[in-house]
Amino acid sequence: MNFITVCFSPALYSYYNDENSVVVIVDVFRATTSMCVAFSNGVKSIRTVADIEEARTMKERGYLVAAERNVRKVDFADFGNSPFDFTSEKVSGKELVFTTTNGTKAVEKAKNADEIIIGAFSNIDAVKEFCISVRKNVFILCSGWNNRFCVEDTLFAGALAQKLIDTELFKSKSDAVNVSVDLWHIAKENLLSYICKTEHYERLVQNGLENSAEYCLTENITPLVPKYNKCNQFFEL
Amino acid sequence: MNFITVCFSPALYSYYNDENSVVVIVDVFRATTSMCVAFSNGVKSIRTVADIEEARTMKERGYLVAAERNVRKVDFADFGNSPFDFTSEKVSGKELVFTTTNGTKAVEKAKNADEIIIGAFSNIDAVKEFCISVRKNVFILCSGWNNRFCVEDTLFAGALAQKLIDTELFKSKSDAVNVSVDLWHIAKENLLSYICKTEHYERLVQNGLENSAEYCLTENITPLVPKYNKCNQFFEL
Repeated sequence: MNFITVCFSPALYSYYNDENSVVVIVDVFRATTSMCVAFSNGVKSIRTVADIEEARTMKERGYLVAAERNVRKVDFADFGNSPFDFTSEKVSGKELVFTTTNGTKAVEKAKNADEIIIGAFSNIDAVKEFCISVRKNVFILCSGWNNRFCVEDTLFAGALAQKLIDTELFKSKSDAVNVSVDLWHIAKENLLSYICKTEHYERLVQNGLENSAEYCLTENITPLVPKYNKCNQFFEL
Repeated sequence: MNFITVCFSPALYSYYNDENSVVVIVDVFRATTSMCVAFSNGVKSIRTVADIEEARTMKERGYLVAAERNVRKVDFADFGNSPFDFTSEKVSGKELVFTTTNGTKAVEKAKNADEIIIGAFSNIDAVKEFCISVRKNVFILCSGWNNRFCVEDTLFAGALAQKLIDTELFKSKSDAVNVSVDLWHIAKENLLSYICKTEHYERLVQNGLENSAEYCLTENITPLVPKYNKCNQFFEL
C-alpha cells in the first residue's frame, strides 16, 4: 500500500518531508494546465525558473519564454500563462522557459524529491496511471497563491486522491487529503459554479481572462505527463 | 463591513499579513480548550512560552507549569494539556505558564497583531461577541500540527466564520474561509464521527486520551475570552 499526502502551500513543503515520493505539482489556474497544453502541442522541453531576471537572460539567449506575474504577461515574454497561448505553431519542437507567480516556486521547493511530475485536470487520468505504475507514495503539492491556500489546486488534489484511493493501492495519509476529497465531492457536480466564488477566479475576471477557467477545469484533454529531468533541470515527456 | 481571514498554519501567518486584526488563536485539541477551562476555573493569568527550557526555568521560579509535547505531559510539569487537569482546586488564583506543541507557537507568530484572543468551541459565542464589539477584521489562526494542516482547528474556523457572516457585519476574505465554512457544514451534524477520521484523534487514541475529544468539541462551556496583554506578555480576562 502506498500513501497520499496533500500539501496546501509551497511554504509548507518542508514540514511534510517525504522526498521518497512522486511529487505532483499542481497550479490549475494556470501554470500546470498550460504546461500540459504546450507538451500536447509538441514543445520539446520546459525549464521552469522562479525568477524573472533569469527568464529575461534566457530570452536574450534565444529561448522562447513564458512569464507571468499576478495573472499578467511580463512585458519581455513571448507568452503569459494562458493555456490558449501555447499553440503548436508557436511551440512545436521548441525549448521553452517558464516562470509564473506560484507554480514555478512549487517546482523549486520540490526539486530534491525522487520524481516530480506536472498535474492538472487536463491530464489527471494520465497522472493517476503514472502513480500506479511507479508504486511510490504520492505527494500532491498545491501551488496556492503567494504561498496562501487556494481552492482550485485543492479540488484537483481531492479529485486525484479519490481516483488513487479507488484503485485500493493508495491510502490517505493526512487530514489534508481527507479534506481535499470532501471538498471535491461538494464541488464536482458543478465545478465551474463552485470555482466562481474563489479568489483566483475573481483575479481572472478582473483581467478579462476568465474564459480559460472552464478549459482549466476540463479533465483528460491530454494523456501526457510532463516529468522533471533532474540532470537537465527541465520537464520533458 | 469587516473581513474574516483563516490561516491554516502558523508557518503561513506572515503570508497573510493583516496585523490590524483581532487574531483568534485556535488549538481545539487541546491547548486553547484547556486555556478556556483554566480561566473558567479561576486562573489569574497564562503566560505562553514556545520553548520547553523557558518553561522549566519558570517552574524553578515557582510558577505552575503546563507543558506538553506530542500529546504527552513533559516530565517536570504540573500539568499536561488535558482540559480535565485544570481544576479550580489546582489553578484558582494562580499564574500559569503554558507550552504546547502547536498552540503556543501560534501565539508567538501573532504577537505583533493588534489584539490576540483565545478561541475554542468552549467559548465560541463569547469570541463571536468579542469580535462584534471591537469591529475589526478577524484573523483566525489555526495552530495545526507541527505547522501542518489539521481538521479540528479548521472546523472551529468554519463554525466561527459562519457565525460572524450570519451577523452581516463580516465577510469572507479568502478561499480558506469559504472552505472552512463548507467543511463545517459537512461535519457539524455529527462532529465527533467526522473527527474520528482525523490524525489528531488517532494520536489521542494511541495515548489513551480520546475521552477529552467530545469535551473539546462542545460549544459554549464558558462565556470568557482570554486576551493577550502585550505589556505583561500573558493572557488574562
